[in-house]
Amino acid sequence: MALVKFIEYADASPEVRAVYDDIMATRKVDWITNFWKALASDAATLKRTWESVKQVMAPGELDPLTKELLYIAVSVTNGCDYCIQSHTAGARKAGMSDGMLAELIAVVGMANETNRLVNGYQIEIDERVAKAAKQR
Amino acid sequence: MALVKFIEYADASPEVRAVYDDIMATRKVDWITNFWKALASDAATLKRTWESVKQVMAPGELDPLTKELLYIAVSVTNGCDYCIQSHTAGARKAGMSDGMLAELIAVVGMANETNRLVNGYQIEIDERVAKAAKQR
Amino acid sequence: MALVKFIEYADASPEVRAVYDDIMATRKVDWITNFWKALASDAATLKRTWESVKQVMAPGELDPLTKELLYIAVSVTNGCDYCIQSHTAGARKAGMSDGMLAELIAVVGMANETNRLVNGYQIEIDERVAKAAKQR
Amino acid sequence: MALVKFIEYADASPEVRAVYDDIMATRKVDWITNFWKALASDAATLKRTWESVKQVMAPGELDPLTKELLYIAVSVTNGCDYCIQSHTAGARKAGMSDGMLAELIAVVGMANETNRLVNGYQIEIDERVAKAAKQR
Amino acid sequence: MALVKFIEYADASPEVRAVYDDIMATRKVDWITNFWKALASDAATLKRTWESVKQVMAPGELDPLTKELLYIAVSVTNGCDYCIQSHTAGARKAGMSDGMLAELIAVVGMANETNRLVNGYQIEIDERVAKAAKQR
Amino acid sequence: MALVKFIEYADASPEVRAVYDDIMATRKVDWITNFWKALASDAATLKRTWESVKQVMAPGELDPLTKELLYIAVSVTNGCDYCIQSHTAGARKAGMSDGMLAELIAVVGMANETNRLVNGYQIEIDERVAKAAKQR
Repeated sequence: MALVKFIEYADASPEVRAVYDDIMATRKVDWITNFWKALASDAATLKRTWESVKQVMAPGELDPLTKELLYIAVSVTNGCDYCIQSHTAGARKAGMSDGMLAELIAVVGMANETNRLVNGYQIEIDERVAKAAKQR
Repeated sequence: MALVKFIEYADASPEVRAVYDDIMATRKVDWITNFWKALASDAATLKRTWESVKQVMAPGELDPLTKELLYIAVSVTNGCDYCIQSHTAGARKAGMSDGMLAELIAVVGMANETNRLVNGYQIEIDERVAKAAKQR
Repeated sequence: MALVKFIEYADASPEVRAVYDDIMATRKVDWITNFWKALASDAATLKRTWESVKQVMAPGELDPLTKELLYIAVSVTNGCDYCIQSHTAGARKAGMSDGMLAELIAVVGMANETNRLVNGYQIEIDERVAKAAKQR
Repeated sequence: MALVKFIEYADASPEVRAVYDDIMATRKVDWITNFWKALASDAATLKRTWESVKQVMAPGELDPLTKELLYIAVSVTNGCDYCIQSHTAGARKAGMSDGMLAELIAVVGMANETNRLVNGYQIEIDERVAKAAKQR
Repeated sequence: MALVKFIEYADASPEVRAVYDDIMATRKVDWITNFWKALASDAATLKRTWESVKQVMAPGELDPLTKELLYIAVSVTNGCDYCIQSHTAGARKAGMSDGMLAELIAVVGMANETNRLVNGYQIEIDERVAKAAKQR
Repeated sequence: MALVKFIEYADASPEVRAVYDDIMATRKVDWITNFWKALASDAATLKRTWESVKQVMAPGELDPLTKELLYIAVSVTNGCDYCIQSHTAGARKAGMSDGMLAELIAVVGMANETNRLVNGYQIEIDERVAKAAKQR
């Protein structure tokens, strides 16, 4: 169980309510998840985290669905169940099909495997690869 | 330095050469990276890994660029330098712009942060989120 | 559920009881947590782990509260729920306020984020930083 | 080598220069590390990250040295060499002695060990511990 | 709860049934675990994963029990509860005693500790060690 | 480069020398690796760590080679290059063949992959598996 009390909208300070209102407006939902209610125990972290997430997850050169998929990939690698479930829900809402989820999980599994093959054999980087990876 | 000798094409067994040929044909390149040359010290792992990577990274419901981005996200989370560099090179070849790389890294950073906010506060999953995450 | 039987004080061997007694005396408590009851299934590990924890967590140049905060930081990064909860309990006992916990979690989140920004951009160490980090 | 070009002060846009100026003023230094010069390739990430780091690392209920120690603990756990070195440098500047560094590393090592003893034995949380960990 | 529906034998396609049959025949069991029933939601991943696991876990220069112990070591390090439990069950079936499990967990804990001592002190590799680690 | 000065035998205190002597006698070698020379900057950690490693890695129900393989498996998963190289050297000395190393790395890669398949699909533990995993 969470280590802090969840702050419900009715009990929230005006500063917290302003963040909740912006979350609901931005995401077009009418409720707040436990994540934000827990962060609200520390209003500065709530506000900073929401503003960062809002900026980072906004459509840019990558579309919102791709960003959700990347979020899932990290969360699966780290084993954060809450994050896997909440971003899987978010990705489904953004259009992720069952087939896309299956392919995502397959890629994440494979990357975690080959990361360790590289570590295990202590493979050094090819000059040509390093060059191709760099910004021109 | 790598713990095994890299197997060059000229020194490779027919079985290893067949895999090298398929890698070069599939990827439309005329050389083999250290990763495969190290795996070739164990022909069974080389063959199995290549066939798995080939299947997993093939275009499906997710396009090849998105799959490369996911590979980078995992490798950045795990801190595998070889993998970050080789899949960044792969993603650039598949069309990743500098802006896309920047957004990818920003999402990966944010996900790693919020994964730990969830852990730190020990936040339990919302019923509604769990339900929305599930396959219908 | 735990993979081994918890060893209760009443059922413990003299060697295990001696460790339990020292834990309770050192920590000024009158009961033993599941962690130690599980380790007691292997008396050598119980004794070695307790003696190490006792030495490492004793007041030194860092005070016990700071050490508990560091323990939480690691456990949050690794996602070990048991460890997060038990060391949060320990830190509260040692004087950690809600505000301190919030700041701790914020730092841990930020460090996990910037660790990946560094990985993602493959940033090399500044000579001046490396020099400033070293023991004089 | 870094995947993006470092942005030197002389070549920076006004927006980036404003962040650099604030970093140098806040930290009372006259130069910028590679970390910020790499982030500057994406001005939005540079600005957001600096403002977050500035807020999170400011003195609060935890003092700046304790926050640097926590940053090191996370970075050591994740194996981020750049981050270990830069925050060790920062901690030394904030007053960390060699003895404090040694104790910090000892706690981090021990926490990483016991996190896995808990995982290995699959130890469930004690009711009393969970209760003691919670905010009153 | 799992994000996909488990595919029971009775509801499985011929392709999935063929994999299930091979799993049961190879492992000499008459039922299928949740792991495979979840993977079966994506028949390509099911088939590829089973064939890889079958090849990798087959007796070779390392015996099946040693391979199960290694699987547990990784799973404990990553904190994957399902994997810890299923491979502990597998290892017990292959002959792992309680004493062997205790020693395994002790080694895994110690390795996780010393990995971080190395990181914390940023210790560079000895020439003689690097040479001794390499294939002759 | 290491953050502390390596303590050479000639410069070591009697307490540190006693540990060095025991390391060399136990391992039947005539030199000390950087790991111990770095730890020697903190004599208490040196002594405690050596005594723990000595106890944990001693022959028991698991033989020394198996313990070295487990150490490598953890180090590869964590990406600790120093630890991978030093324990690969140790394992070779204890009789590990190239084939055994290849199989070890293959198992570690596979376990890291399936750990994430489990996370990705959020697969819950089978009752029968949990029961089979427990100590009788």
